[in-house]
Amino acid sequence: MALIVQKYGGTSVGDVDRIKNVARRVTLARAAGHDVIVVVSAMAGETDRLIGLAQKMAERPDERELDVILATGEQVSIGLLSLAIQGLGYRARSFTGSQVRIQTDDVHTKARIVSIDADRVRQALAEGEIAIVAGFQGVSAEDEITTLGRGGSDLTAVAMAAALAADVCEIYTDVDGVYTADPNIVPEARKLDRISYDEMLELASLGAKVLQTRSVEYAKNYLVPVHVRSSFNDNPGTMVVKEDTTMEKVVVSGIAYNKQEAKITITRVADRPSIAATLFGRVAEANIVVDMIVQNISQDGSTDISFTVPKTDYARTQEIVRVILKEIGADKVIGDDKIAKVSIVGVGMRTHSGVAAKMFETLGREKINILMISTSEIKVSCVIEAKYTELAVRVLHEAFGLAREAVVEDTV
Amino acid sequence: MALIVQKYGGTSVGDVDRIKNVARRVTLARAAGHDVIVVVSAMAGETDRLIGLAQKMAERPDERELDVILATGEQVSIGLLSLAIQGLGYRARSFTGSQVRIQTDDVHTKARIVSIDADRVRQALAEGEIAIVAGFQGVSAEDEITTLGRGGSDLTAVAMAAALAADVCEIYTDVDGVYTADPNIVPEARKLDRISYDEMLELASLGAKVLQTRSVEYAKNYLVPVHVRSSFNDNPGTMVVKEDTTMEKVVVSGIAYNKQEAKITITRVADRPSIAATLFGRVAEANIVVDMIVQNISQDGSTDISFTVPKTDYARTQEIVRVILKEIGADKVIGDDKIAKVSIVGVGMRTHSGVAAKMFETLGREKINILMISTSEIKVSCVIEAKYTELAVRVLHEAFGLAREAVVEDTV
Repeated sequence: MALIVQKYGGTSVGDVDRIKNVARRVTLARAAGHDVIVVVSAMAGETDRLIGLAQKMAERPDERELDVILATGEQVSIGLLSLAIQGLGYRARSFTGSQVRIQTDDVHTKARIVSIDADRVRQALAEGEIAIVAGFQGVSAEDEITTLGRGGSDLTAVAMAAALAADVCEIYTDVDGVYTADPNIVPEARKLDRISYDEMLELASLGAKVLQTRSVEYAKNYLVPVHVRSSFNDNPGTMVVKEDTTMEKVVVSGIAYNKQEAKITITRVADRPSIAATLFGRVAEANIVVDMIVQNISQDGSTDISFTVPKTDYARTQEIVRVILKEIGADKVIGDDKIAKVSIVGVGMRTHSGVAAKMFETLGREKINILMISTSEIKVSCVIEAKYTELAVRVLHEAFGLAREAVVEDTV
Repeated sequence: MALIVQKYGGTSVGDVDRIKNVARRVTLARAAGHDVIVVVSAMAGETDRLIGLAQKMAERPDERELDVILATGEQVSIGLLSLAIQGLGYRARSFTGSQVRIQTDDVHTKARIVSIDADRVRQALAEGEIAIVAGFQGVSAEDEITTLGRGGSDLTAVAMAAALAADVCEIYTDVDGVYTADPNIVPEARKLDRISYDEMLELASLGAKVLQTRSVEYAKNYLVPVHVRSSFNDNPGTMVVKEDTTMEKVVVSGIAYNKQEAKITITRVADRPSIAATLFGRVAEANIVVDMIVQNISQDGSTDISFTVPKTDYARTQEIVRVILKEIGADKVIGDDKIAKVSIVGVGMRTHSGVAAKMFETLGREKINILMISTSEIKVSCVIEAKYTELAVRVLHEAFGLAREAVVEDTV
């Protein structure tokens, strides 16, 4: 008998029939003798509907009140799922974030979990009940309702699993697991049986939308085994676990891409200290998150700086930069929103050389120009022209032999 | 500077524009220097939508989970109204029933208020904020979400007014106040400037839908002055207040009717003790609320018993009675669901005689047959054929001179 946390997203509880489907899955686990905690999101579309209402009231809704409104989405889901489970003859009990008690800081709309009490949930389990917990929400020390930001239900699930030392945290979604690449682009993409926390972190932040980044960080910190799987079939999914030595033998685990960024280049910036601080300070003040930054080696006292920002902030960033162009002694601003970032990820890179070179060579062979490069210990990202995205993902998938089962490469 | 509690029902906050309209009203009171607490219901239709979802999950939804689901309706309303008020440049803060803290017993879907803490609301007012409180909901000693039953937001408002010793509790609705009769039936019906708690109680329970009965009881117990008025105009409404001597001079204050009941007659019931207990015991076990009961004087050892139940329980009640027909030694069951109850109400009846006689005489003159009669200190109710309802209300309104201003009758 295990203690299992299951998390179902908005699509999985999107309508009456789907909630009943989730109820059946949950009761199967219970019938198998397991203790089950279920974390659910708001029904698909509900959060957006509520945000829409709030925005009709005030252009920039107060975030405390926004949290009061948004938290209702999950509260409806837990009640409905409890009823559906009871309808199947099982005992179930719902818990809001406040009731659990999921204590957070007081940063509304993106609160961080401080601690989880979970005594009431433990008691419910001890009484043979299935515990249904509202995802995405918590409560501050001052008894204010808080929310954890988009995808926060993943975090709730992982945090509950950590707090109760669950045997596994199952994240149910609309895909079968984590793939070596987007199967819509690479038909030969292979589902990974296992992946390390660090690899999952890179893939999550690079645009593979399976798991929210913060939930992976949390799982890594507390060593929570996460099982990503589909709520529409019984296939085993992907286990996200602690890195082990066999994983290191796989150089590249997956390929991610992101078309949601735009590139901005500032030419002939005066090569003085504090210029970068001024530039990126202004951008940060506008709450614009910069991803990659590349600065060429200075020649004749000036340099070019390129960086990427979310496409939604593209126009606004250019305005900000234009205003300070003279101040930083630069020539002009060049924008490009027809770019994509393609990345290869794998813990094996730590112990294998030549991985980046092979990536550049593969792209070069296809005449795909590389506009920017960024690397970490277990990742290489290249910014390329957007039109080559699918081609790049496919040739890299092929080059690193990801379609084959259990790829083990000794040297590359 | 006064402390005002304002309550807005579901129709008043039915859509974005109406919520903004409520926000304007609220800020006017605040701008006039008053401390303002606002109690709101769920947006019109929302509670029914949520009940519909719950009923699709389970035929008889568990009431604890139903409360979890239903409480979200008001939680959305308080957040949206807070945002709308902030949008007008005023400070506002929303409070759920749990946050207030409105402590109730643990009878889900029809909880009773045990106590109100309201420290947080007091603090918000002291800081110059307008406090927006979720109607209809509370929290049990075990931190369970409870609801107060249909119309419970009226009760929340009156209870908040009592807890904070507010100067007035304004109940905003879609009518101008309490009328001498339904203006749709009697065009000459007059809005009452003042009415006593007891009269309002009778009118409320007799089918005038302006105020929820329990909220009037609560107002009476704590002597909360209640002002019933329209949220769509600035007309003064009706003050519901403690009875005073001038009120006694008015024999009849208003006329109510109720078409939602059906009559059941059991003929030739054995005239033994305990028969009534058996009969109404069985009906009560099925959670059917009996209103009027009439038993004729026994002749030759048997008697006829008639009683009324809500139309929605009509068929079920007949089944129950048929089952025990032999047991209580009765002959047969006769049902009639084409009836109406017409009532006259007035504290002046206590000191005036002949009021009931005048009612019977008035109905008799119109050849309206009286099927059942029931009286209290300040009320006379007659059950008649439903088709005569409007006629009866009109002739009684005329007979008791309700269209005239400040009617004072010495003897009737």
